[in-house]
Amino acid sequence: MKLVLDAMGGDHAPSINIGGAVDALRLYPKLKHLFLVGDQAVLKEECARQGLDLNDPRVSLVHAPEVIDMCEPGAKTVRRKKLSSINVAMDLVKDGHADAFVSAGNTGAVVASATLKLRTLKGVDRAGISTAIPNEYGLCSILDAGANPEAKPEHLVAYAVMGTAFARHVLGVKAPRVGLMSNGEEDEKGTAFTKETFKLLKATPGIHFIGNVEGTDLFETELDVVLCDGFTGNVMLKTVESTAKAVSKWLKAEIIASPLRMLGALIAKGAFTALKEKSSYETYGGSPLLGVNGVVIIAHGSSSALAVRNAIRVGIETVAHRVNPRIEEALAAICKPAVVGN
Amino acid sequence: MKLVLDAMGGDHAPSINIGGAVDALRLYPKLKHLFLVGDQAVLKEECARQGLDLNDPRVSLVHAPEVIDMCEPGAKTVRRKKLSSINVAMDLVKDGHADAFVSAGNTGAVVASATLKLRTLKGVDRAGISTAIPNEYGLCSILDAGANPEAKPEHLVAYAVMGTAFARHVLGVKAPRVGLMSNGEEDEKGTAFTKETFKLLKATPGIHFIGNVEGTDLFETELDVVLCDGFTGNVMLKTVESTAKAVSKWLKAEIIASPLRMLGALIAKGAFTALKEKSSYETYGGSPLLGVNGVVIIAHGSSSALAVRNAIRVGIETVAHRVNPRIEEALAAICKPAVVGN
Repeated sequence: MKLVLDAMGGDHAPSINIGGAVDALRLYPKLKHLFLVGDQAVLKEECARQGLDLNDPRVSLVHAPEVIDMCEPGAKTVRRKKLSSINVAMDLVKDGHADAFVSAGNTGAVVASATLKLRTLKGVDRAGISTAIPNEYGLCSILDAGANPEAKPEHLVAYAVMGTAFARHVLGVKAPRVGLMSNGEEDEKGTAFTKETFKLLKATPGIHFIGNVEGTDLFETELDVVLCDGFTGNVMLKTVESTAKAVSKWLKAEIIASPLRMLGALIAKGAFTALKEKSSYETYGGSPLLGVNGVVIIAHGSSSALAVRNAIRVGIETVAHRVNPRIEEALAAICKPAVVGN
Repeated sequence: MKLVLDAMGGDHAPSINIGGAVDALRLYPKLKHLFLVGDQAVLKEECARQGLDLNDPRVSLVHAPEVIDMCEPGAKTVRRKKLSSINVAMDLVKDGHADAFVSAGNTGAVVASATLKLRTLKGVDRAGISTAIPNEYGLCSILDAGANPEAKPEHLVAYAVMGTAFARHVLGVKAPRVGLMSNGEEDEKGTAFTKETFKLLKATPGIHFIGNVEGTDLFETELDVVLCDGFTGNVMLKTVESTAKAVSKWLKAEIIASPLRMLGALIAKGAFTALKEKSSYETYGGSPLLGVNGVVIIAHGSSSALAVRNAIRVGIETVAHRVNPRIEEALAAICKPAVVGN
């Protein structure tokens, strides 16, 4: 199990990346080798600062002189900055040196580089990002969270199959429940796009399609995969994040408004800490880019070392559970249904 | 000022509707007359139960034998149930007996009935629902929240003008800031739909367009109107609602997990109450359906009496501030720019 980490990706690179690497090397025995990709001088200094021993045979430093900034246009910049950490790292996966790539960098650039260099799996037209959020029953994955903003109905059918494979083999859900995000639960609700997708999903074997779902279902319905185009998924995820942030910010403001309330909150502190842990993306770590011919895990741009470490864990699990071969098998089964009898 | 209330609309009708009516009649001196529309026998009993005096000259009961259920397909049912409370109430506005209509009933049916009976304002192709959520700076209106799921770019231009008029004249914002919901803040982000809309908005006079915004901006950016198609708006709003609900539910669960935490929460109780009030849609009450030739306010299906009362308040303010004439003026100014000089 060899992984490659984009040591320059994310808002707080390279310190959180190296921090996550140190923890991952200590915690995950399955991780046999970790490539750190980025500017050699910068990384050497950061590794020294955080006590990451570059003589450790499990660690290699791979030089990449360029960095793609978080706000640069992804696809364009990937073609221009050929020696960026994202491209150099992706080549390691493409050439078989590494089994998976983890990046907290520019999402658009990671998607573009992965699609260009690794290509998509057989039967897959467009890759999709699967981002998990915690709900009452476990984890609910939003697919696509932003790779493919103008998705076609067929893309969502492949997402349903890929999301099912990931939930089943990595998250351990026996029969993952798949819903289609719409503006109402009734079958006839939605746009021309969701209605066509609904029809295709109804006819797709091997998935457990429960029909249309709404924003209100995200947390309260037993739901493992929520399908949507990448525009809707991106808006939804950022809305979840900002709402949760606003609620806790306002609660904090109300608490510090009075010394008595502050005392009460101090006494109940454990509850706030537990909530923070449950609702933090750091705990879930990384979102797999499903559908490319290789394992690519995208971490949040504002990731902490904990989030990077958990993204590495997701990468390890995705490789270990052979998610891609299983996706290809499942898609092959849809395209060529076994003829039984006549 | 004469208003008509759909006394049968909503999950808890007619009790919350009559409760809201009682409070509105007591609290809003501008409200000179209130028509209550619904099944006469049912309403008489409910009014008696809640002490609403039907001999009050400010109150009229208007019989409507049919009710459109919350889960019926809106547009179809409006055509079939001609004597539903929604249709009978809308006729009172259409025929000039009432200045505004307030309903917590089936949103699709209210939109369809309003569009059929009242028609749209001059210069408006499609009506849009403007739903306000509280943010750091005041209220941020999501427009469209669900009336027009497959909007065209031109529709969003009219929404920008209407949202600006509503924020300026009803909410008292001097120069309302208008953003376009996208999957990134950079100008070039988005789908073909949002990119075309962006171009049109840039060229629209009389609005303060601040560019693309993301889900993360909803609560933290100074933003008065967020434009989007009705599908995205609906998904977003329900996501905000369910996220806030999940966060408080999980916090409650963590608190009751230990007697000490419960004690702390009891001491800090004021903070929770204040937060609940700030974040509850009940406080904001109703969402205007902007663009129809009449004032129509849509309240949440699970409205309480407080939410109904506040929706009536929004109706009164929308009429009092002459929002529709101002929208027509603003749209006319765009279509025929005044030629100054040569």
